[in-house]
Amino acid sequence: MAKILIRAMVLPMTGPEDFYPEGEIAIENDRILFVGEKGSTPDSFVPERIIDLPDDVVMPGLINTHTHAAMTMLRSYADDLPLMPWLQTKIWPFEDKLSDEDIYWGTLLALGEMIQSGTTTMLDMYASMSHVAKAVLEAGTRGVLARGLIGNAPNGEKALAENIELVREYHGAGKGRIQIMFGPHAPYTCSGEFLQRVKQEADRLGVGIHIHVAETEDEIGTIKEQYGKTPVQWLDELGLFGGHVVAAHCVHLTEEDRDILAQRKVCVAHNPESNMKLNSGTAPVPELRSRGVLVGLGTDGASSNNNLDMFGEMRSAALQQKLTKGATTLPAYEVLQMATVDGARSLGLKDVGMLVPGYKADLISIDFDQPHFYPRFSVPAHLVYVAHAGDVRTVMVDGELLMEERQLKTIDIKRVCHEVEKRAKAIAESF
Amino acid sequence: MAKILIRAMVLPMTGPEDFYPEGEIAIENDRILFVGEKGSTPDSFVPERIIDLPDDVVMPGLINTHTHAAMTMLRSYADDLPLMPWLQTKIWPFEDKLSDEDIYWGTLLALGEMIQSGTTTMLDMYASMSHVAKAVLEAGTRGVLARGLIGNAPNGEKALAENIELVREYHGAGKGRIQIMFGPHAPYTCSGEFLQRVKQEADRLGVGIHIHVAETEDEIGTIKEQYGKTPVQWLDELGLFGGHVVAAHCVHLTEEDRDILAQRKVCVAHNPESNMKLNSGTAPVPELRSRGVLVGLGTDGASSNNNLDMFGEMRSAALQQKLTKGATTLPAYEVLQMATVDGARSLGLKDVGMLVPGYKADLISIDFDQPHFYPRFSVPAHLVYVAHAGDVRTVMVDGELLMEERQLKTIDIKRVCHEVEKRAKAIAESF
Repeated sequence: MAKILIRAMVLPMTGPEDFYPEGEIAIENDRILFVGEKGSTPDSFVPERIIDLPDDVVMPGLINTHTHAAMTMLRSYADDLPLMPWLQTKIWPFEDKLSDEDIYWGTLLALGEMIQSGTTTMLDMYASMSHVAKAVLEAGTRGVLARGLIGNAPNGEKALAENIELVREYHGAGKGRIQIMFGPHAPYTCSGEFLQRVKQEADRLGVGIHIHVAETEDEIGTIKEQYGKTPVQWLDELGLFGGHVVAAHCVHLTEEDRDILAQRKVCVAHNPESNMKLNSGTAPVPELRSRGVLVGLGTDGASSNNNLDMFGEMRSAALQQKLTKGATTLPAYEVLQMATVDGARSLGLKDVGMLVPGYKADLISIDFDQPHFYPRFSVPAHLVYVAHAGDVRTVMVDGELLMEERQLKTIDIKRVCHEVEKRAKAIAESF
Repeated sequence: MAKILIRAMVLPMTGPEDFYPEGEIAIENDRILFVGEKGSTPDSFVPERIIDLPDDVVMPGLINTHTHAAMTMLRSYADDLPLMPWLQTKIWPFEDKLSDEDIYWGTLLALGEMIQSGTTTMLDMYASMSHVAKAVLEAGTRGVLARGLIGNAPNGEKALAENIELVREYHGAGKGRIQIMFGPHAPYTCSGEFLQRVKQEADRLGVGIHIHVAETEDEIGTIKEQYGKTPVQWLDELGLFGGHVVAAHCVHLTEEDRDILAQRKVCVAHNPESNMKLNSGTAPVPELRSRGVLVGLGTDGASSNNNLDMFGEMRSAALQQKLTKGATTLPAYEVLQMATVDGARSLGLKDVGMLVPGYKADLISIDFDQPHFYPRFSVPAHLVYVAHAGDVRTVMVDGELLMEERQLKTIDIKRVCHEVEKRAKAIAESF
């Protein structure tokens, strides 16, 4: 598809005042050419197709900055348990049995769910990442992929070698739709020496690092006992924070930790539903944002959430902060920024997350012609406090339509659901 | 429709172990005749219609135990403000301008949204309640209706007279679909003398009382200053808790308050999203449940939520408790009980909230043939942690289908959306 004109309400996410109640977006190949009032696209643009969505809000595709996509395989397999028994008796034994193919199918299921709920980019940390890359290339979404590295595990070295190989093979694949990062799991599962080697490799190959940091109080205690420091201090001292780093969670931070993250330009992936469900705590989101830290939103894996719905995540982000810090905290538009432009920036994607000329045509439309969207007083408030996954009608990535009229176009979803059901149940029954 | 057989996965909400992966429900007129395995309905039942939903979970319709339905008129009109400025500068001035007709249309919009998201019964507190009753009768849902009474307002006496008239005219209307309660707003907006008169009238007419109690710390301070007691102690001393009482919120309770609510069999309507969004606090839900208090779930009005989606409310109820009290708190099945059978009991509805023979045929089906419901490890976890409003396919109340294949059958929703948009915008523009 070369030239497309979309007419809709347009929320470009370029600033709180920017909104076109009757707008249009001109797209040529993978890029946005023009955004403005309906009818104001230069006459020189002759669209091959016009998509009229007068009752839809078109906005940038949502950016999920922290997930483990293939964990859809474990969705609702174990819930309502304390963190360590949950991991040790349920999640890890199940994960040990996942094959490359299981991870491929689990990821495709996740991508189907993500597209249906308006997510166009994910930062994914898991194993068998070449199979994840294959799924992302097929689905047509954007993916920043990190091989999860448990330095202290027997396969730590092998995983690091896989991560290096992943950079060589997939960084920039799919016309740039795939980017690779290194994925050292956490300061309590990787030694200082291992983390420094990861950092060297990342610098050498020119890619970033994705790591879990300060998720639980237990972690703070462990690292303090081991190194006499907070996880953030420890990682900073190791030199891990020199380049592009996305730190997931960052729930338990001292004032000094927050300053370090700001000074080092570490980006934070905030996962409110996982943090609430696992009783991890409330991340200092406004406190980080006020220091200039880029904070994106993530769903975490479907085993601790239990869906990949960024609309639910936006709502929960706002509610969790308001509950603990006051009703005026984190207003709707700021939450939308986290889920779009700030998320894109935090992943190092410079031409994604806003609807402006020259940017990639990664966008979604939300069907506002439904009872829960009336009256239409505030589009940002409706998107954060009202909308749900099922409201997404259209999804485009790189100028390609991945969903139209709520129908997935790149994934044979019936088959994927069937495969995942069969494979997940077989693993569960093997115990 | 006299005799209907529904074949589906059936979650009757009669106990955590009760589930039919291939089940069926036989319905005659407004009642359930039989629930069991597929094919086990007695041969004497000859259905006039068979509804096959093999990929849907059928469960009792959801019970919204606290809302102000017509406040859909104010949806996303004002957000992210502190409570009192929000009420004083935005909500109350707007509400002052609502006509009977505005309230009728706003309620119809709410009912459309409720049906679409699987709610079959609401407890509604507002004004112009005969117009609300008319909307409920047209929509076909079940409604427990209370005239909101601000005893201290100039129209306090008039409102009380309207509530009495409402009992006379509508209690038991629509073949019992409508029940009436008295709706004294709160201990800080009604004098002790007014509350006692309301109680006398409720007793005289044999109906219950719905009231806001202990929603915010401000309220606790006000009542303590005025009466030297907590709101719960004060209401108990006034004798308000003798009969059927549904107390909304109950966020800030002393140990003694909790004991009083249990001893007096006061039912509690818990509104997690409103409590989070307005920074009211975290209600002691497991603490009340462990004392035997019936706790239902409510959405509160759409101006502080901003939708009427009970699936979101279930999820938020679990997440809020887990965040503050641990990951094992309030497991999925308990949340489902709150949203169905406990909610029904708390409203005094004895034959609603479970799928068992002899009960009213109030049920919904959720379309599980979607990516976010695979793999199917746990139906309760899927319903609480995964499902969203858009997943509801079928809604039945009193044996009548109010929605089939996601299409509303009793409400002309296009017209309702148009009316609400026009009316709400006209009020907003009048300031």
